[in-house]
Amino acid sequence: STASQRYTVTLFPGDGIGPEISQAVQDVFAAAKLPIDWEVYHVSTKSVKPGEDLIPKEALDAVKRNGYGLKGPLETPIGKGHKSLNLTLRKALSLYANVRPCVSVPGVKTKYENVNVVTVRENTEGEYSGLEHMVYPGVVEMIKLITRQASLRVARYAFEYAKNNQRKMVTAVHKATVMKRADGLFLECCREVAQEYPNIQYEEMLIDTCAAHLVQNPSRLDVMVMPNLYGDIISDLCAGLIGGLGLTPSGNMGESCMLAEAVHGTAPDIAGKNLANPTALLLSSLMMVRQMKLFEKADIIENAIYDVLKEGKVRTRDLGGTATCTDYTLAIVDKIHKSL
Amino acid sequence: STASQRYTVTLFPGDGIGPEISQAVQDVFAAAKLPIDWEVYHVSTKSVKPGEDLIPKEALDAVKRNGYGLKGPLETPIGKGHKSLNLTLRKALSLYANVRPCVSVPGVKTKYENVNVVTVRENTEGEYSGLEHMVYPGVVEMIKLITRQASLRVARYAFEYAKNNQRKMVTAVHKATVMKRADGLFLECCREVAQEYPNIQYEEMLIDTCAAHLVQNPSRLDVMVMPNLYGDIISDLCAGLIGGLGLTPSGNMGESCMLAEAVHGTAPDIAGKNLANPTALLLSSLMMVRQMKLFEKADIIENAIYDVLKEGKVRTRDLGGTATCTDYTLAIVDKIHKSL
Ligand SMILES: CC(C)[C@H](C(=O)O)[C@@H](O)C(=O)O
Ligand SMILES: CC(C)[C@H](C(=O)O)[C@@H](O)C(=O)O
Repeated sequence: STASQRYTVTLFPGDGIGPEISQAVQDVFAAAKLPIDWEVYHVSTKSVKPGEDLIPKEALDAVKRNGYGLKGPLETPIGKGHKSLNLTLRKALSLYANVRPCVSVPGVKTKYENVNVVTVRENTEGEYSGLEHMVYPGVVEMIKLITRQASLRVARYAFEYAKNNQRKMVTAVHKATVMKRADGLFLECCREVAQEYPNIQYEEMLIDTCAAHLVQNPSRLDVMVMPNLYGDIISDLCAGLIGGLGLTPSGNMGESCMLAEAVHGTAPDIAGKNLANPTALLLSSLMMVRQMKLFEKADIIENAIYDVLKEGKVRTRDLGGTATCTDYTLAIVDKIHKSL
Repeated sequence: STASQRYTVTLFPGDGIGPEISQAVQDVFAAAKLPIDWEVYHVSTKSVKPGEDLIPKEALDAVKRNGYGLKGPLETPIGKGHKSLNLTLRKALSLYANVRPCVSVPGVKTKYENVNVVTVRENTEGEYSGLEHMVYPGVVEMIKLITRQASLRVARYAFEYAKNNQRKMVTAVHKATVMKRADGLFLECCREVAQEYPNIQYEEMLIDTCAAHLVQNPSRLDVMVMPNLYGDIISDLCAGLIGGLGLTPSGNMGESCMLAEAVHGTAPDIAGKNLANPTALLLSSLMMVRQMKLFEKADIIENAIYDVLKEGKVRTRDLGGTATCTDYTLAIVDKIHKSL
C-alpha cells in the first residue's frame, strides 16, 4: 500500500440497525480521510424468495475484486427453507478464519479488567458442514468434518496473527480426549505449524477447561485457535467478558479477501430510531483498515472511539447513556478532527 | 425408603487424590449415621492392560444391583489405545443424564454472587458417539448422533428435576440455526416434553448466546438441558463462576442406578499428601443421599460443609488455607455431631 493507493470496500449494511451503524462507519472513515470508497449492496433475508440466490453473484464478485467487505448484522432465518446469509458469505468467499479480538473497552465496566484474548476460529467446516440427515425415524446423524487442509490453514493464520501482533502464545482448543480422530487431526496440524514458530509458545487445552479458565482468569489465555463451533461458543463467551457482542469486533479472513462484520443482532426493537451503538462495527472496520496496513489511521480512529467511551459523556443507551447513534458518531468525528 | 432401610453404595475411589477425598466422604457419612454401607472397587487406567476390560463386570453389576455408585476422579488416557473410564461407566450403566448444580459456595468469593444454575446434559450420544473415521487421507468425519429416544428422556429428566426442586424455568440450549436436523430434533423433543409441564417456563437459547449470558448475568438462567458436548462445555463454564470444579457436584442418572462423581482432576502433584479438598465429592455424594430421599441427613451434612466454608477458619490450600484434608473433614464431622 502506498500513500496514494485507494481502496474500495463492498458494504452490506444489513438488517435492522445495520444501515445506521454502517452510516456511522462511513462518517468516521470520511472524517479520518481514509482512502476508501464504498460499493453498497443491500442484501437481506427478507428480500429473497426461497430458492433464489441469497446474495447476488455480482455482490460476491465485488468483495473478491475489491478484497474487502464490511457487513452489518443480518437476520438468521430459522427453518425458513434457506441458509443463513452469514454462512453463505463465509462459504462463497472461502473465508477460512474468523478472528475476534476481545479487549476490555476503556470506560466500560464489567466484572473483568484488562481482558485481552483473541479467538481464531476455523470458519468453513467442522460442525458447520451442513451434512446431516435423519437416517431412521427419530435418529439424526450430523457429520463434523475436519480436514488437514483447513486445519493447517487456520493454524497458520493463528500463528501469523500472533507474530504480527506481538502475541506470546497460541492455545489450540479441542476435545481430542473424546473426538480422538477429528480433534486429533486438528491438534496434529496445530503442532506441525507450531514448529515453524519457535518464538511463540504453543499449548493445547480442552474446550471445557478453556471455558472454565476464561471465566476464572482470562489472562491465562492469549491467542486461541479452534474448530468452528468451539470458536462460535468461546468467542461469545469472551465477548461477554468485555461487555457483549455490541463491543466486539470480528473479521473473516480469506485467501484473497476479508470481510469485517458486526456479530451482534439486528435489534429490530430499536431499528431506525437512531439509538444503536456502532462500536462493534467500527472496531471491526478497523481490523480491515489494519489489513490495508493503514496503521496510523486505524490508531487515530481507535483512540477517538476509546477516548469518547472513557470520558463517558456521550454514550448510547445500551451503555447507560442518552446519546443517539449520531451524537456518538459526531463525538468520535470531533476527536478525529482534533488529532489529524 | 423407610427409617430402617440400609443402602449399599459401590465406591470407586479413583486415581490421585481420589482415595483421600473418598475417605473424607466415608468419614462424614459415618458421622451423620447414614444407613449406608460401602462396596469398594479399585479401578484405574493404570491397572488395566490395553485390550482388557477397563471395569470388571462385577463392579458394573454391583452398581446396578446397589442402585448407587460414587466415583472419585479417574485419569483420562489420551490416545493410549483405550477409552476413558468415565465414558465407559456412563455407557455401561446407561447413565443418560448428567446433572451439575452450580450454586455459589458460602465464603468462597468469586466475581459472581448468588449463582444458582443447573446443567442437565444428555450423557450417552451426541458428539460422544465414538463414531469417527478418516474417510480419505487428511479428512476425518465424526458423527454426532441425536435420537428422539435419548432427547425425550433427558428433556423429561430436566423437567422432573425442575419440578422436584422448585425451579421455575428450563432452557433448552442448542445450535439449531446451524444443525437444523440434529439440534432441531433435540428441540422438538424438548418442546414436546415442555407441554407436559405447564407450570414450568420453557425457553430455547443458542449455545453461544447462553455462554455470553452466563458470563454477564447468570441469574438469567435456571435449569438448562442440552446435548452432550454442549453440556460438557457449559457445565465447566458454570463451575468456573462459583470457583471451579473442586467445588462443583455432579450426578449421572440412569434408569435404575445413579453414579455421583467428582469431575475435577486427579491432582497427581498433591496426591497422597493429605492436601486435597473433598468438597466436590462431598456435594456430589449429597445428590446421591437426596436421591435416597434422606433429605434431612443431606441437609445436615450440607449445612455442616457450608458452615465450615463460611467461617473460613479451616480451609484447604486451594481455598487459601492451611488445613489438611483430614482437618477439614474433622471440622465438618464436628458440626455434624453438634447438630445430630
Ligand atoms: C449467525 C450464526 C450462523 C453465526 C455462527 O454460528 O457462526 C453467528 O453466531 C456467528 O458467530 O457469527
Ligand atoms: C473425562 C471426560 C471424558 C469428561 C467428558 O468430557 O464428559 C469430563 O470432561 C466430564 O465433563 O465429565
